[in-house]
Amino acid sequence: MTTFSLNQQLDNDCVTLGLFGSSHLLLYNNSLLPWFILVPPTEACEIFDMGPEAQQQLFAEINHLGQFVDREFNTDKVNTAAIGNIVRQLHIHVVGRYEDDFCWPNVVWGTTEKKPYSATEIQSIIARLTTKAEAHFQPASEHMIN
Amino acid sequence: MTTFSLNQQLDNDCVTLGLFGSSHLLLYNNSLLPWFILVPPTEACEIFDMGPEAQQQLFAEINHLGQFVDREFNTDKVNTAAIGNIVRQLHIHVVGRYEDDFCWPNVVWGTTEKKPYSATEIQSIIARLTTKAEAHFQPASEHMIN
Repeated sequence: MTTFSLNQQLDNDCVTLGLFGSSHLLLYNNSLLPWFILVPPTEACEIFDMGPEAQQQLFAEINHLGQFVDREFNTDKVNTAAIGNIVRQLHIHVVGRYEDDFCWPNVVWGTTEKKPYSATEIQSIIARLTTKAEAHFQPASEHMIN
Repeated sequence: MTTFSLNQQLDNDCVTLGLFGSSHLLLYNNSLLPWFILVPPTEACEIFDMGPEAQQQLFAEINHLGQFVDREFNTDKVNTAAIGNIVRQLHIHVVGRYEDDFCWPNVVWGTTEKKPYSATEIQSIIARLTTKAEAHFQPASEHMIN
């Protein structure tokens, strides 16, 4: 087991929310869409190169996160993808989409329109994860409410 | 169990190769990239809305197909995605990518550059599936070699 280190570009573009199952849960810092990213603790760059138990765990996390996004954000579609052409650290996008969102029906990857979250909006998402996905989510220490 | 019916747009854009596990395996008709599509036999539009056994089956198929693409086409990265903004019938893209391909490092969705396969090239891909993914692949009757 090596120490987890988050890719610099993911770190720059996202807010680390905490853990979702065993993966790190990031929020892509664009409030135009509920766009989450799971980063499993693995050196593999492809899901099929992970061990079978880690794969199962990751698939369960992808499903639970997709359900959370769909239900809590009342989306029209969830887009789920492992791409990794630019950032090789394995990460899975789980993006809630709306039929009137800024790039519908196109994909979000490659778009540049962006509106960063306010601190209050981020806290609100953390609160929803804490109450609605409590079986899976553990907030990062900086987001803990004492 | 309802009769499987393939979405018209998928049918227009792809060649049906056969079955891969319990999913229909399509080849997106663009020889610029090894671009496969799995269509599981479900009415659900999201993987998380499938039953747990069907989900497991589909995840195993996605992994086996990703491995096949990576190894047989010697790709630099595999892009895997369930999008479905335009075609709601659940389908999963498994796309082999190369660092010198026509749209690297961008995603393939939304691109228009295209070179249809010849019949010989399609037969060659079916032959590779039949020999290298024989545990999972069953060619459609029109591709069977007597």
